Amino acid sequence: MSTIGPYSFKQYLKMVEDFHGRVAPGMVTGGFMIDLARRNLPEGALFDAVSETTSCLPDTIQLLTPCTIGNGWLRVIDTGRFALTLFEKYEGAGVRVFLDVEKLEGWPEIKAWFLKLTPKSEQDTKRLLEELKEAGSDIYRVEHVPGYLGKQKKKHVRLCARCREPFRSDMEDTCPFCTGEKAYLEPSAHD
Amino acid sequence: MSTIGPYSFKQYLKMVEDFHGRVAPGMVTGGFMIDLARRNLPEGALFDAVSETTSCLPDTIQLLTPCTIGNGWLRVIDTGRFALTLFEKYEGAGVRVFLDVEKLEGWPEIKAWFLKLTPKSEQDTKRLLEELKEAGSDIYRVEHVPGYLGKQKKKHVRLCARCREPFRSDMEDTCPFCTGEKAYLEPSAHD
Repeated sequence: MSTIGPYSFKQYLKMVEDFHGRVAPGMVTGGFMIDLARRNLPEGALFDAVSETTSCLPDTIQLLTPCTIGNGWLRVIDTGRFALTLFEKYEGAGVRVFLDVEKLEGWPEIKAWFLKLTPKSEQDTKRLLEELKEAGSDIYRVEHVPGYLGKQKKKHVRLCARCREPFRSDMEDTCPFCTGEKAYLEPSAHD
Repeated sequence: MSTIGPYSFKQYLKMVEDFHGRVAPGMVTGGFMIDLARRNLPEGALFDAVSETTSCLPDTIQLLTPCTIGNGWLRVIDTGRFALTLFEKYEGAGVRVFLDVEKLEGWPEIKAWFLKLTPKSEQDTKRLLEELKEAGSDIYRVEHVPGYLGKQKKKHVRLCARCREPFRSDMEDTCPFCTGEKAYLEPSAHD
Protein backbone atom coordinates (compact mmCIF):
# COMPACT_ATOMS: atom_id res chain seq x y z
CA MET A 1 0.00 0.00 0.00
CA SER A 2 1.47 3.35 -0.93
CA THR A 3 -1.28 5.81 -0.07
CA ILE A 4 -2.49 7.28 3.21
CA GLY A 5 -6.01 8.63 2.91
CA PRO A 6 -6.14 10.71 -0.28
CA TYR A 7 -2.38 11.31 -0.20
CA SER A 8 0.61 9.56 -1.67
CA PHE A 9 3.01 8.18 0.93
CA LYS A 10 5.47 10.95 0.07
CA GLN A 11 2.85 13.70 0.36
CA TYR A 12 1.78 12.33 3.71
CA LEU A 13 5.37 12.33 5.03
CA LYS A 14 5.67 15.99 4.05
CA MET A 15 2.44 16.84 5.91
CA VAL A 16 3.73 14.96 8.94
CA GLU A 17 6.98 16.88 8.90
CA ASP A 18 5.17 20.23 8.62
CA PHE A 19 2.70 19.55 11.43
CA HIS A 20 4.49 17.15 13.77
CA GLY A 21 8.03 18.45 13.26
CA ARG A 22 9.57 15.17 12.12
CA VAL A 23 8.68 11.93 10.36
CA ALA A 24 8.04 9.84 13.45
CA PRO A 25 7.33 6.13 12.92
CA GLY A 26 4.18 6.47 15.04
CA MET A 27 2.83 9.01 12.57
CA VAL A 28 3.25 6.56 9.70
CA THR A 29 1.64 3.82 11.75
CA GLY A 30 -1.22 6.15 12.60
CA GLY A 31 -1.86 6.93 8.94
CA PHE A 32 -2.48 3.27 8.16
CA MET A 33 -4.55 2.86 11.32
CA ILE A 34 -6.91 5.68 10.35
CA ASP A 35 -7.29 4.29 6.83
CA LEU A 36 -8.26 0.94 8.33
CA ALA A 37 -10.72 2.48 10.77
CA ARG A 38 -12.41 4.56 8.06
CA ARG A 39 -12.76 1.55 5.76
CA ASN A 40 -14.67 -0.14 8.57
CA LEU A 41 -17.09 2.73 9.10
CA PRO A 42 -20.09 3.40 6.82
CA GLU A 43 -19.01 5.60 3.91
CA GLY A 44 -19.45 9.29 4.63
CA ALA A 45 -20.19 8.70 8.32
CA LEU A 46 -19.48 11.57 10.68
CA PHE A 47 -17.40 10.45 13.61
CA ASP A 48 -15.68 11.40 16.84
CA ALA A 49 -12.24 10.07 17.66
CA VAL A 50 -10.48 8.78 20.73
CA SER A 51 -6.73 8.33 20.97
CA GLU A 52 -5.56 6.08 23.78
CA THR A 53 -2.13 7.68 23.83
CA THR A 54 -0.68 11.19 23.68
CA SER A 55 2.06 9.96 21.35
CA CYS A 56 1.70 10.63 17.63
CA LEU A 57 -1.85 9.27 17.18
CA PRO A 58 -3.58 12.53 18.16
CA ASP A 59 -1.60 14.24 15.41
CA THR A 60 -2.44 11.68 12.72
CA ILE A 61 -6.10 12.02 13.66
CA GLN A 62 -5.89 15.81 13.44
CA LEU A 63 -4.09 15.68 10.09
CA LEU A 64 -6.32 13.11 8.41
CA THR A 65 -9.79 13.68 9.87
CA PRO A 66 -11.96 16.68 10.83
CA CYS A 67 -11.44 15.78 14.51
CA THR A 68 -9.22 18.06 16.59
CA ILE A 69 -8.63 18.52 20.30
CA GLY A 70 -9.88 22.10 20.17
CA ASN A 71 -13.13 21.39 18.32
CA GLY A 72 -14.00 18.61 20.73
CA TRP A 73 -14.26 15.82 18.17
CA LEU A 74 -11.01 14.25 19.37
CA ARG A 75 -10.44 13.19 22.93
CA VAL A 76 -7.27 11.71 24.39
CA ILE A 77 -8.04 9.05 26.98
CA ASP A 78 -4.58 7.95 27.98
CA THR A 79 -4.62 4.21 28.61
CA GLY A 80 -1.01 3.99 27.43
CA ARG A 81 -2.05 1.65 24.63
CA PHE A 82 -1.21 2.55 21.03
CA ALA A 83 -4.79 2.50 19.77
CA LEU A 84 -7.35 4.80 18.23
CA THR A 85 -11.10 4.53 17.83
CA LEU A 86 -13.47 6.33 15.49
CA PHE A 87 -17.07 6.46 16.76
CA GLU A 88 -20.05 7.14 14.54
CA LYS A 89 -21.29 10.50 15.74
CA TYR A 90 -24.95 9.63 16.19
CA GLU A 91 -25.10 5.85 16.50
CA GLY A 92 -22.05 5.60 18.71
CA ALA A 93 -20.76 2.38 17.19
CA GLY A 94 -16.99 2.47 17.05
CA VAL A 95 -14.08 0.96 15.19
CA ARG A 96 -10.95 0.52 17.29
CA VAL A 97 -7.61 -0.14 15.64
CA PHE A 98 -4.39 -1.13 17.32
CA LEU A 99 -1.01 -2.47 16.33
CA ASP A 100 -1.09 -6.22 16.95
CA VAL A 101 2.18 -7.54 18.41
CA GLU A 102 1.24 -11.05 17.30
CA LYS A 103 1.60 -9.93 13.69
CA LEU A 104 5.13 -8.56 14.07
CA GLU A 105 7.17 -11.74 13.65
CA GLY A 106 8.22 -10.93 10.09
CA TRP A 107 8.98 -7.29 10.88
CA PRO A 108 12.04 -7.07 13.14
CA GLU A 109 12.53 -3.29 12.96
CA ILE A 110 8.87 -2.58 13.71
CA LYS A 111 8.89 -5.02 16.60
CA ALA A 112 12.09 -3.56 18.10
CA TRP A 113 10.73 -0.02 17.80
CA PHE A 114 7.22 -0.73 19.03
CA LEU A 115 8.24 -2.77 22.07
CA LYS A 116 11.28 -0.54 22.74
CA LEU A 117 13.61 -3.55 22.53
CA THR A 118 16.52 -1.43 21.30
CA PRO A 119 17.54 2.08 22.37
CA LYS A 120 16.38 4.81 20.02
CA SER A 121 20.00 5.63 19.13
CA GLU A 122 20.42 2.15 17.63
CA GLN A 123 17.18 2.32 15.67
CA ASP A 124 17.54 2.10 11.88
CA THR A 125 14.86 4.64 11.06
CA LYS A 126 15.12 4.32 7.30
CA ARG A 127 14.62 0.57 7.46
CA LEU A 128 11.85 0.97 10.01
CA LEU A 129 9.92 3.32 7.72
CA GLU A 130 10.41 0.91 4.82
CA GLU A 131 9.05 -1.96 6.89
CA LEU A 132 6.06 0.10 7.96
CA LYS A 133 5.30 1.04 4.36
CA GLU A 134 5.71 -2.55 3.17
CA ALA A 135 3.61 -3.98 6.00
CA GLY A 136 0.83 -1.54 5.12
CA SER A 137 -2.31 -2.48 7.03
CA ASP A 138 -1.23 -6.10 7.73
CA ILE A 139 0.07 -5.51 11.27
CA TYR A 140 -3.04 -3.98 12.84
CA ARG A 141 -6.21 -5.39 14.29
CA VAL A 142 -9.72 -3.98 14.02
CA GLU A 143 -12.30 -4.33 16.79
CA HIS A 144 -15.90 -3.20 16.63
CA VAL A 145 -16.75 -1.57 19.93
CA PRO A 146 -19.88 -0.04 21.45
CA GLY A 147 -20.31 3.70 21.94
CA TYR A 148 -18.14 5.56 24.38
CA LEU A 149 -19.32 7.67 27.25
CA GLY A 150 -20.21 10.61 25.06
CA LYS A 151 -19.28 14.25 25.21
CA GLN A 152 -19.01 16.17 28.39
CA LYS A 153 -21.86 18.62 28.50
CA LYS A 154 -21.04 22.28 28.19
CA LYS A 155 -20.58 23.89 31.54
CA HIS A 156 -21.40 27.34 32.80
CA VAL A 157 -18.77 29.98 33.33
CA ARG A 158 -18.12 30.99 36.95
CA LEU A 159 -15.58 33.26 38.57
CA CYS A 160 -13.12 31.34 40.71
CA ALA A 161 -13.45 32.39 44.35
CA ARG A 162 -9.69 32.51 44.68
CA CYS A 163 -7.97 33.64 41.46
CA ARG A 164 -11.06 35.53 40.22
CA GLU A 165 -10.58 34.20 36.71
CA PRO A 166 -13.59 32.73 34.91
CA PHE A 167 -13.60 28.96 34.59
CA ARG A 168 -16.03 26.36 33.35
CA SER A 169 -17.92 24.63 36.08
CA ASP A 170 -21.43 23.76 37.15
CA MET A 171 -20.67 23.02 40.77
CA GLU A 172 -17.37 24.23 42.13
CA ASP A 173 -16.61 27.72 43.41
CA THR A 174 -12.85 27.35 43.11
CA CYS A 175 -11.06 26.37 39.91
CA PRO A 176 -9.00 23.15 39.71
CA PHE A 177 -5.81 25.21 39.56
CA CYS A 178 -6.53 26.93 42.87
CA THR A 179 -7.76 23.78 44.60
CA GLY A 180 -4.43 22.19 43.71
CA GLU A 181 -6.01 19.48 41.59
CA LYS A 182 -4.44 20.95 38.42
CA ALA A 183 -1.75 23.14 39.95
CA TYR A 184 0.79 22.55 37.23
CA LEU A 185 2.92 25.56 38.08
CA GLU A 186 5.30 25.67 40.98
CA PRO A 187 3.41 26.73 44.11
CA SER A 188 4.81 30.25 44.18
CA ALA A 189 3.27 31.17 40.85
CA HIS A 190 -0.03 32.49 42.08
CA ASP A 191 0.73 33.16 45.73
CA MET B 1 -4.13 44.92 14.94
CA SER B 2 -4.89 43.02 11.74
CA THR B 3 -2.31 40.24 11.74
CA ILE B 4 -2.04 36.99 13.63
CA GLY B 5 1.52 35.71 13.69
CA PRO B 6 2.87 36.00 10.14
CA TYR B 7 -0.64 35.86 8.66
CA SER B 8 -3.20 38.47 7.69
CA PHE B 9 -6.41 38.23 9.69
CA LYS B 10 -8.17 36.84 6.62
CA GLN B 11 -5.48 34.21 5.99
CA TYR B 12 -5.69 33.16 9.61
CA LEU B 13 -9.48 32.75 9.46
CA LYS B 14 -9.05 30.50 6.43
CA MET B 15 -6.50 28.36 8.30
CA VAL B 16 -8.87 28.15 11.25
CA GLU B 17 -11.72 27.00 9.04
CA ASP B 18 -9.57 24.33 7.39
CA PHE B 19 -8.20 22.91 10.63
CA HIS B 20 -10.87 23.58 13.23
CA GLY B 21 -13.91 23.25 10.96
CA ARG B 22 -15.36 26.70 11.62
CA VAL B 23 -14.32 30.21 12.56
CA ALA B 24 -14.93 29.92 16.30
CA PRO B 25 -14.47 33.10 18.37
CA GLY B 26 -12.13 31.21 20.70
CA MET B 27 -9.81 30.54 17.77
CA VAL B 28 -9.57 34.27 17.02
CA THR B 29 -8.98 35.02 20.68
CA GLY B 30 -6.30 32.34 20.79
CA GLY B 31 -4.47 33.87 17.86
CA PHE B 32 -4.04 37.18 19.68
CA MET B 33 -3.12 35.35 22.88
CA ILE B 34 -0.30 33.45 21.21
CA ASP B 35 1.03 36.62 19.60
CA LEU B 36 1.11 38.26 23.02
CA ALA B 37 2.82 35.30 24.65
CA ARG B 38 5.49 35.12 21.95
CA ARG B 39 6.22 38.82 22.17
CA ASN B 40 6.97 38.25 25.85
CA LEU B 41 9.40 35.40 25.26
CA PRO B 42 13.01 35.93 24.12
CA GLU B 43 13.13 36.06 20.34
CA GLY B 44 13.72 32.68 18.76
CA ALA B 45 13.20 30.82 22.06
CA LEU B 46 12.10 27.20 21.82
CA PHE B 47 9.09 26.56 24.01
CA ASP B 48 6.58 24.06 25.27
CA ALA B 49 2.93 24.98 25.59
CA VAL B 50 0.15 24.34 28.07
CA SER B 51 -3.50 24.97 27.34
CA GLU B 52 -5.74 25.17 30.40
CA THR B 53 -8.81 24.25 28.38
CA THR B 54 -9.75 21.72 25.71
CA SER B 55 -11.74 24.42 23.88
CA CYS B 56 -10.17 26.09 20.88
CA LEU B 57 -6.82 27.05 22.46
CA PRO B 58 -5.15 23.69 21.76
CA ASP B 59 -5.97 24.22 18.10
CA THR B 60 -4.61 27.77 17.94
CA ILE B 61 -1.41 26.54 19.55
CA GLN B 62 -1.13 23.70 17.05
CA LEU B 63 -1.79 26.04 14.10
CA LEU B 64 0.56 28.82 15.13
CA THR B 65 3.43 27.11 16.94
CA PRO B 66 5.50 23.93 16.51
CA CYS B 67 3.77 22.48 19.60
CA THR B 68 1.27 19.66 19.05
CA ILE B 69 -0.39 17.11 21.31
CA GLY B 70 1.20 14.22 19.43
CA ASN B 71 4.77 15.55 19.52
CA GLY B 72 4.54 16.19 23.24
CA TRP B 73 5.29 19.91 23.12
CA LEU B 74 1.68 20.80 23.93
CA ARG B 75 -0.10 19.54 27.01
CA VAL B 76 -3.71 20.17 27.97
CA ILE B 77 -4.08 20.63 31.71
CA ASP B 78 -7.78 21.28 32.03
CA THR B 79 -8.34 23.83 34.76
CA GLY B 80 -11.41 25.11 32.90
CA ARG B 81 -9.79 28.54 32.57
CA PHE B 82 -9.36 30.11 29.15
CA ALA B 83 -5.60 30.51 29.36
CA LEU B 84 -2.45 29.35 27.67
CA THR B 85 1.18 29.38 28.70
CA LEU B 86 4.35 29.11 26.64
CA PHE B 87 7.36 27.86 28.62
CA GLU B 88 10.94 28.31 27.51
CA LYS B 89 12.10 24.79 26.75
CA TYR B 90 15.31 24.79 28.75
CA GLU B 91 14.94 27.59 31.31
CA GLY B 92 11.36 26.78 32.13
CA ALA B 93 10.26 30.39 32.55
CA GLY B 94 6.77 30.82 31.22
CA VAL B 95 4.45 33.46 29.86
CA ARG B 96 0.80 32.89 30.68
CA VAL B 97 -1.91 34.77 28.82
CA PHE B 98 -5.59 34.90 29.65
CA LEU B 99 -8.61 36.93 28.68
CA ASP B 100 -9.15 39.50 31.42
CA VAL B 101 -12.82 40.02 32.27
CA GLU B 102 -11.96 43.34 33.86
CA LYS B 103 -11.05 44.68 30.43
CA LEU B 104 -14.35 43.76 28.77
CA GLU B 105 -16.47 46.76 29.74
CA GLY B 106 -16.26 48.38 26.32
CA TRP B 107 -16.86 45.12 24.46
CA PRO B 108 -20.42 43.91 25.01
CA GLU B 109 -20.42 41.08 22.45
CA ILE B 110 -17.12 39.67 23.72
CA LYS B 111 -18.31 39.85 27.31
CA ALA B 112 -21.63 38.15 26.53
CA TRP B 113 -19.88 35.39 24.60
CA PHE B 114 -17.03 34.82 27.03
CA LEU B 115 -19.16 34.71 30.16
CA LYS B 116 -21.98 32.88 28.35
CA LEU B 117 -24.44 35.64 29.27
CA THR B 118 -26.58 35.03 26.19
CA PRO B 119 -27.49 31.73 24.54
CA LYS B 120 -25.37 30.85 21.54
CA SER B 121 -28.42 31.13 19.26
CA GLU B 122 -28.72 34.85 20.12
CA GLN B 123 -25.02 35.53 19.60
CA ASP B 124 -24.20 38.04 16.85
CA THR B 125 -21.15 36.23 15.56
CA LYS B 126 -20.25 38.79 12.92
CA ARG B 127 -20.23 41.60 15.45
CA LEU B 128 -18.37 39.43 17.94
CA LEU B 129 -15.59 38.75 15.44
CA GLU B 130 -15.40 42.45 14.62
CA GLU B 131 -15.08 43.33 18.29
CA LEU B 132 -12.37 40.70 18.76
CA LYS B 133 -10.42 42.06 15.80
CA GLU B 134 -10.83 45.66 16.96
CA ALA B 135 -9.89 44.84 20.56
CA GLY B 136 -6.72 43.15 19.31
CA SER B 137 -4.49 42.39 22.26
CA ASP B 138 -6.12 44.94 24.61
CA ILE B 139 -8.37 42.50 26.45
CA TYR B 140 -5.77 40.01 27.66
CA ARG B 141 -3.39 39.88 30.57
CA VAL B 142 0.15 38.54 30.62
CA GLU B 143 1.69 36.86 33.66
CA HIS B 144 5.26 35.69 34.00
CA VAL B 145 5.21 32.29 35.69
CA PRO B 146 7.85 29.83 36.86
CA GLY B 147 8.49 26.53 35.11
CA TYR B 148 5.86 23.85 35.09
CA LEU B 149 6.28 20.32 36.31
CA GLY B 150 8.13 19.18 33.23
CA LYS B 151 7.61 16.36 30.84
CA GLN B 152 6.57 12.95 31.90
CA LYS B 153 9.51 10.66 31.40
CA LYS B 154 9.24 8.03 28.72
CA LYS B 155 7.94 4.77 30.05
CA HIS B 156 8.70 1.19 29.16
CA VAL B 157 6.34 -0.91 27.13
CA ARG B 158 4.72 -3.82 28.96
CA LEU B 159 2.06 -6.33 27.98
CA CYS B 160 -1.14 -5.83 29.94
CA ALA B 161 -1.85 -8.89 32.07
CA ARG B 162 -5.49 -8.80 31.07
CA CYS B 163 -6.00 -7.54 27.48
CA ARG B 164 -2.49 -8.63 26.41
CA GLU B 165 -1.98 -5.38 24.48
CA PRO B 166 1.27 -3.48 24.99
CA PHE B 167 0.94 -0.32 27.05
CA ARG B 168 3.35 2.24 28.47
CA SER B 169 4.09 1.73 32.11
CA ASP B 170 6.99 1.39 34.49
CA MET B 171 5.06 -0.12 37.38
CA GLU B 172 1.65 -1.54 36.62
CA ASP B 173 0.91 -4.99 35.19
CA THR B 174 -2.58 -4.11 34.02
CA CYS B 175 -3.38 -1.21 31.71
CA PRO B 176 -5.62 1.67 32.86
CA PHE B 177 -8.36 0.49 30.50
CA CYS B 178 -8.53 -2.94 32.11
CA THR B 179 -8.26 -1.63 35.67
CA GLY B 180 -11.30 0.51 34.94
CA GLU B 181 -9.43 3.76 35.51
CA LYS B 182 -9.76 4.70 31.82
CA ALA B 183 -12.53 2.33 30.77
CA TYR B 184 -14.13 4.73 28.34
CA LEU B 185 -16.11 2.09 26.48
CA GLU B 186 -19.29 0.56 27.80
CA PRO B 187 -18.43 -2.37 30.06
CA SER B 188 -19.44 -5.04 27.59
CA ALA B 189 -16.81 -3.93 25.09
CA HIS B 190 -13.95 -6.11 26.21
CA ASP B 191 -15.70 -8.69 28.33
